[in-house]
Amino acid sequence: MTKLEQLKERLGVVTDLNGAASVLGWDQQTYMPPGGAAARAEQLATLGRLAHEALISEETGELLEGASTEVTGLPSDSDEMCLLRVVRRDFERARKVPATLVAEIARATSLGMEVWIRARAESSFTAFQPAFQRILDLQRQLAQCLGFEESPYDALLDQYEPGMKKSDLVRIFGELKAGLVPLVQWVAERLDRVDDSILHRKYPEASQWELGIEAAKAFGYDFQRGRQDKSVHPFTTSFSINDVRITTRVDEQFLPSALFGTLHECGHALYEQGISQTLERTPLASGASLGVHESQSRLWENLVGRSRGFWRFFLPQLQRTFPENLQSVAPESFYRAINRVEPSLIRVEADEVTYNLHILLRFELESRLVEGKLDLAALPEAWNAGMKALLGIVPSNDAQGVLQDVHWSNGLIGYFPTYALGNLISVQLFEKAQSEIPSLAARIESGDFQPLLGWLRQNVHQHGRKHLPSELVERATGTGLRASSYLRYLREKYSEIYG
Amino acid sequence: MTKLEQLKERLGVVTDLNGAASVLGWDQQTYMPPGGAAARAEQLATLGRLAHEALISEETGELLEGASTEVTGLPSDSDEMCLLRVVRRDFERARKVPATLVAEIARATSLGMEVWIRARAESSFTAFQPAFQRILDLQRQLAQCLGFEESPYDALLDQYEPGMKKSDLVRIFGELKAGLVPLVQWVAERLDRVDDSILHRKYPEASQWELGIEAAKAFGYDFQRGRQDKSVHPFTTSFSINDVRITTRVDEQFLPSALFGTLHECGHALYEQGISQTLERTPLASGASLGVHESQSRLWENLVGRSRGFWRFFLPQLQRTFPENLQSVAPESFYRAINRVEPSLIRVEADEVTYNLHILLRFELESRLVEGKLDLAALPEAWNAGMKALLGIVPSNDAQGVLQDVHWSNGLIGYFPTYALGNLISVQLFEKAQSEIPSLAARIESGDFQPLLGWLRQNVHQHGRKHLPSELVERATGTGLRASSYLRYLREKYSEIYG
Repeated sequence: MTKLEQLKERLGVVTDLNGAASVLGWDQQTYMPPGGAAARAEQLATLGRLAHEALISEETGELLEGASTEVTGLPSDSDEMCLLRVVRRDFERARKVPATLVAEIARATSLGMEVWIRARAESSFTAFQPAFQRILDLQRQLAQCLGFEESPYDALLDQYEPGMKKSDLVRIFGELKAGLVPLVQWVAERLDRVDDSILHRKYPEASQWELGIEAAKAFGYDFQRGRQDKSVHPFTTSFSINDVRITTRVDEQFLPSALFGTLHECGHALYEQGISQTLERTPLASGASLGVHESQSRLWENLVGRSRGFWRFFLPQLQRTFPENLQSVAPESFYRAINRVEPSLIRVEADEVTYNLHILLRFELESRLVEGKLDLAALPEAWNAGMKALLGIVPSNDAQGVLQDVHWSNGLIGYFPTYALGNLISVQLFEKAQSEIPSLAARIESGDFQPLLGWLRQNVHQHGRKHLPSELVERATGTGLRASSYLRYLREKYSEIYG
Repeated sequence: MTKLEQLKERLGVVTDLNGAASVLGWDQQTYMPPGGAAARAEQLATLGRLAHEALISEETGELLEGASTEVTGLPSDSDEMCLLRVVRRDFERARKVPATLVAEIARATSLGMEVWIRARAESSFTAFQPAFQRILDLQRQLAQCLGFEESPYDALLDQYEPGMKKSDLVRIFGELKAGLVPLVQWVAERLDRVDDSILHRKYPEASQWELGIEAAKAFGYDFQRGRQDKSVHPFTTSFSINDVRITTRVDEQFLPSALFGTLHECGHALYEQGISQTLERTPLASGASLGVHESQSRLWENLVGRSRGFWRFFLPQLQRTFPENLQSVAPESFYRAINRVEPSLIRVEADEVTYNLHILLRFELESRLVEGKLDLAALPEAWNAGMKALLGIVPSNDAQGVLQDVHWSNGLIGYFPTYALGNLISVQLFEKAQSEIPSLAARIESGDFQPLLGWLRQNVHQHGRKHLPSELVERATGTGLRASSYLRYLREKYSEIYG
């Protein structure tokens, strides 16, 4: 065996362990009975530790060295060169973090999650503050271990969005904020122009479930290589390129919850199912970053799923399924209802227009926390002031405000920005696809999503984790990441709806 | 940390890996989409290899040595002494088998399974014979590696029924056969005395499912620490003492399939759920042997589930669920229907009386194969002759005969006898429980299974794998394993039904 083959076998073991852990995680959130929790935590800890040890071992380092000399001369975007580049990055990063710190972070976040659940129930940030302080201190230690040039936040962000820096976000999000705040204000003065009461009628669960499956099939999600189950929080998980699963939840009193949830997760799943089979059982068989991943979910959920064209195709099916609720609804009313905008307190319930402002707030606060420029005690006040400035509303308690998201209690700092990046990238990709497929709109209206999926497969999906997100966007669209496309898209769409 | 603590941590890792593999196996048989198969095989192979390596490492051997000196003086049936005894046995056995042989067996059985599926579809034993020969040769090599005193069959049997020897089986099964053959002949002359046509009406799936759940709950199966799902072949699997799952399948045209399937698996699951929590995350947290495990499934399926007393409690519920089919059925007719006996070709469809004869045939044939006293080419003929002698019927083709079971294609030789042992043990345990709980029959009739479950928990379940099966039976019943109890039970029950 060559060194490269030996390295691949070693990485195959790591991939197997991670895949097994993903199965255990999926089961935990879908079918596991309550009694299984303690043993499951042990099993996941063991799998995680073994995968980590296999990755950071001296032997991996030696094989990386040896394999590098074997591949000299191959194109820099070949599977082999990309594999070595990505694994070297993973390897070096993983070796920078002492096992003791990893264990302390695991303990602190495990505890932090419990404390957060109680604190949110009591709507008391002060109850969460000590646990959060510990988590934050450990994340700052982690940043020091990982290393950075400009800001410790860069080190954390890089875990989720490789190559991205805080200074990039300041620039992009600054442009975004400048465009969004006036747009939201403008819409806020016209809220009564859109009525979504038809979405709040009773929609039986089984029919909602079937419709989600139908839509996912139409998009091209392969149920021979995936399935949909129920969970409290919708998610997508992948055990291999050929076993990519989604979950959703159903609210019988609100149609969009399950349907757009399914379209969103389906977007993630199409990405994972579309990775080149040559990358199977390697660390390249996943998305380029969380931001690029989110671009795929948002593209199918919003740019397709909330478009007029899609509903020309899909509304008749919906009307046949729910004739009492929808038979007499005009397509235009339905389109407006699912695109209703309203500044609101909770991020996960936010619409396309206001959503990014929730992210901007979190980015600003967490980056200041990490840089030591904001004291935790002052966080709730800063949160409320930010909400007022960005969205013009203020939460009446911490549960509806600073305590609403699980992320920080989980140690996920530097993670929120990827949601906004996903939105921006989704429009950049969609615009490019439109320009390269002149008939795209007509094809979507007729229920043919193959041209769009084919374009994404070609330009995004197949590459898996081969390229840095910025490179991938550049290769696919010819331009760098920017806010202008997204702002233009929002202005055109919503000035028409609310104009 | 003491050596014992270090050993336990090491064994904990092995247990975690095995538990994770069980989750993957469960998913494979319940929810996995077809595309997931290839990656799943890799993941399971990796988990199995890592668990094996962790078990057989030098370090385990050293820790066993060290821990042994630490526990001197503890009672021989203490958790610690039992753990060391069992782990030493596992360790020594595992080290006797070269990794190359393990790999060859894995390859041959993987291929053998495929060949068997085709051969059975074509009903051609000759199509299976070469693959089976390879599997058999490897099992004989395995027996040589494991070592034995009397027969190579002992080495294979010992994997599933520790401490049991072929000579024990010859004695016990001889007694069983002498009693069963005339009993079956006697019943065969009276087949028309029992009519089970009411069981072949249409029973809608959802209601059957609910009834199975109700019965399992009544028995004491804890759904907070388990769940039931659907699979092609029913099974029980355990990821921890607190996550023990069962599966079943539903035939809408035959009531007993799902119901008795659930009761059977529920018996296995009650065993696993009843293991002492002090044994969690150790190799002792499983059944003493396949035979003892089967005793629990058969006890709940047959001794409880096919008894008059149980149906005094449960028939009214069944009648309320299926009034059209069952409202006018007399309890006695129902009891007779579910206890109908008929010599038949297929083991998995056999009734209580004829079932063990199917096992006796397989034991006789496979032990002769392993000992080189029967040539594979002569197997189908020997099978048919055996069926004639034991059950008075002869299959018309190999699919209905020698090819019907998956076990041999899987390398499972020495496994079949545990089914019959389970039947025998089930009656010995039940008789003892009856003698110690005078009100047992009345409690079962009133739907109170707690006394029986409590007795089993105390005498069987809690001990997990601490004792050898023969010791466990001796401790629980005061007598050794024997056929007489089972024969007496069958004679009493069936002479009344068919008399």
